Amino acid sequence: MYSASTKLIMATALFVFGCISNASASPILVVGHKTPDTDAIVSAIAVAQLKSAQGIEAQAVAQGEPNAETRFVLEKFGFSAPPVQTEFAGREVILVDHSDAQLAPDDLDRARLVGIYDHHKLGGLSTDEPIDVIVKPWGSTATILYEVFGQEGVKIDTPIAGLLLSAVLSDTRVFRSPTTTEQDKRIAKELALIAGVSDLEAYGLQMLQAYNADMAKLDDASLVRLDFKIFKMGTYKVGIAQLEAFDADFLTQRLAGLRQALDQALADNTLDAMVLAITDLNRDGSTLLVAGTETGKVRSALGLSSDPLGTFKPGILSRKRQLVPPLENAFKS
Amino acid sequence: MYSASTKLIMATALFVFGCISNASASPILVVGHKTPDTDAIVSAIAVAQLKSAQGIEAQAVAQGEPNAETRFVLEKFGFSAPPVQTEFAGREVILVDHSDAQLAPDDLDRARLVGIYDHHKLGGLSTDEPIDVIVKPWGSTATILYEVFGQEGVKIDTPIAGLLLSAVLSDTRVFRSPTTTEQDKRIAKELALIAGVSDLEAYGLQMLQAYNADMAKLDDASLVRLDFKIFKMGTYKVGIAQLEAFDADFLTQRLAGLRQALDQALADNTLDAMVLAITDLNRDGSTLLVAGTETGKVRSALGLSSDPLGTFKPGILSRKRQLVPPLENAFKS
Repeated sequence: MYSASTKLIMATALFVFGCISNASASPILVVGHKTPDTDAIVSAIAVAQLKSAQGIEAQAVAQGEPNAETRFVLEKFGFSAPPVQTEFAGREVILVDHSDAQLAPDDLDRARLVGIYDHHKLGGLSTDEPIDVIVKPWGSTATILYEVFGQEGVKIDTPIAGLLLSAVLSDTRVFRSPTTTEQDKRIAKELALIAGVSDLEAYGLQMLQAYNADMAKLDDASLVRLDFKIFKMGTYKVGIAQLEAFDADFLTQRLAGLRQALDQALADNTLDAMVLAITDLNRDGSTLLVAGTETGKVRSALGLSSDPLGTFKPGILSRKRQLVPPLENAFKS
Repeated sequence: MYSASTKLIMATALFVFGCISNASASPILVVGHKTPDTDAIVSAIAVAQLKSAQGIEAQAVAQGEPNAETRFVLEKFGFSAPPVQTEFAGREVILVDHSDAQLAPDDLDRARLVGIYDHHKLGGLSTDEPIDVIVKPWGSTATILYEVFGQEGVKIDTPIAGLLLSAVLSDTRVFRSPTTTEQDKRIAKELALIAGVSDLEAYGLQMLQAYNADMAKLDDASLVRLDFKIFKMGTYKVGIAQLEAFDADFLTQRLAGLRQALDQALADNTLDAMVLAITDLNRDGSTLLVAGTETGKVRSALGLSSDPLGTFKPGILSRKRQLVPPLENAFKS
């Protein structure tokens, strides 16, 4: 409880997100972020089961259809996809795998947010009442949920363990992502025991490759747009796109087409330079293609050859940690 | 980890609160809200000790001096007040007992937020990286910290148990506040055993009365301003001030002066009506004084006599739950 004077300060606060409290007696809706991935879908199913085990009516829903990887996982452990739901007004809602208004349901301000389980940066949500929030800087929401089940004294059954394990392996790219923590590795082993998955590496590879099927369907322009960010670096505008795959051969076989799409994206966005990183988690590195008038700066900052079809750089996996900082240095000076 | 398309959505998000990441190797600063109360100060001390026990350097600080109640608690269990600190730029920071930018350090955007332990509504904070957040809708942050110590396997020693117990009793007004949960009652008993406090009720009363000393020093105008909120109700502007004390006799002895201060606050804020609730937790009710041109509406909505020195209403403890709704109904029609 805040002290009296503190309440005066609070009365002046501007809240980004107000929530009404006239939620109905319908089940709580548990939902992951827009464009759901395996962790978003699986975490919704697991939290709904946790609440149900505690006598609280809850239903897992999704803001979109599962991708190929998630469909593989759901089928393997005997689940159907949570129904797609885009209207949440008047309902009680638990958000999983996001805490960001941009990724939450569009009408969340007309719903009543009652809980958040997440492993991402905080995204500025506000509420009118205290709610349940658990956020940890771990590799997946599924890792956190394993702990929450334990703390709440609810047993994780074999199918839920299979789902949670899959989400840990998906989000950590089978422990190769730099976001992987010791907790993810330890808890994945515990989950594998319950789920009866004997070879984590083999299962993870099989699962991640299922996602390749979705990427393989996209044309070159769509692939370049799939995960594309634009950065202001000094007076320059630099784009960096990244494609991640466990075995990226199906992408590197398309370098000529991707190279053309890269030039097009550069022109469409009036960039000074553009980088496409095709990250192969299995080979632990990225093939980097460069376009633009400032390719010289980019090549020298990242140590690349002038091969128009790119240079494979071992060890490069993270745009944020390994590409942005050297490029910012190069374009600042 | 978000999927590729989801990251595209995120790139468009406007973040209210950015945090830089060049924090120094100095201890993490653990800090409660502005105008700190017992829960804010105590939770900072407890989290700093939790982190230290885990080998993480952390220091409890405060955004202001402790009030009389908190000074009583600190002295009883052998602690000195955490140093007042208002500059956090470049430091790692854990917020306790608030998750609201308005109540956080003014320069939090130049610090690196690494954790939040709170029991209030979410207040729109954002970060650049995932952090540790635990928020629960319980009666005090101290109640939550008891659970966190247990989950982290860190023993609560006698002095910290005394502090945490005091914060639970303070925030729940010895379990009389409608914000009190079953967890608060259960955990207070556990903490009392460790702290060696045999009579919770007697100790809580003694502690809450220490706070009266601070209120007793204020003049009538300052008392009316202490916890004063203005509401728009229909076309009317209605002010509701509340003063809470365990034994409110020292306040009800000043009704004539408070009545004058109430008239002044009404005029200063051009209100149609104004209510002052002097809540006596021990008598489980509030003395309600009314002023303004619309006193008739207020009196009939709340069932009050026309005594200018107020009416005692048994059972009325909460402005938000028991005063605002009937007044809104009366002024809407």
